[in-house]
Amino acid sequence: MSTDERAIRDLIDTWLTASAAGDIAKVLTLMTDDVVFMTPGREPFGKAAFEASSRQMSEKGIRFEAKSQIVELQVNGAFAFCRTRLEVTGQSPAGSANRRTGYTMSILQKGQDGSWRIARDANLLA
Amino acid sequence: MSTDERAIRDLIDTWLTASAAGDIAKVLTLMTDDVVFMTPGREPFGKAAFEASSRQMSEKGIRFEAKSQIVELQVNGAFAFCRTRLEVTGQSPAGSANRRTGYTMSILQKGQDGSWRIARDANLLA
Repeated sequence: MSTDERAIRDLIDTWLTASAAGDIAKVLTLMTDDVVFMTPGREPFGKAAFEASSRQMSEKGIRFEAKSQIVELQVNGAFAFCRTRLEVTGQSPAGSANRRTGYTMSILQKGQDGSWRIARDANLLA
Repeated sequence: MSTDERAIRDLIDTWLTASAAGDIAKVLTLMTDDVVFMTPGREPFGKAAFEASSRQMSEKGIRFEAKSQIVELQVNGAFAFCRTRLEVTGQSPAGSANRRTGYTMSILQKGQDGSWRIARDANLLA
């Protein structure tokens, strides 16, 4: 496994761990400033909207746990794409759980600091 | 606009025109052999499944017309990604129409023959 591939796998692990811990500040460091998130039935949104909705969930005490399996990862220079199968469970403080599964396709960029970050993310979870 | 960007825009135009004309053979030349299509709520599928479902629609007399607006296109060597806003209208022979809008994110590859093709496609139309 190449150094870049290892770094991208670590990035995804760190993302999942930080998300599960509610560490929004950490998650924000793992995406580019111009990141675009795409989900079905909604206009694409960026970093500020991601942060706002993460804080809103956090204030409501909602926690997300995700399991991700990388089904494809291709690196081309400072540019990569990754497809994952994702299982997300949202848990409210009242105890209700909401489980969704599906696939994602992300584009990653290697910054001038040598770190990989998520730059575009299409999340097809139904 | 670079030659590569022009070629990718032409590819997308050709795809839409050939699809609208029901020219499945032409559309199949515009994707890599290992293409992966991703849609919400369904397992990813490849070229053979794309062809089978296109032929099935065609036999039923269903025609698709799509309008596509490229919202982002980035080329990095022999690798590119493209995001579009897509509006698709399916028309059955009985006259019923079904209109859907949304976004797509595609990964494109430049083949050894110098032609760009769709390699991965995430279609988020609701």
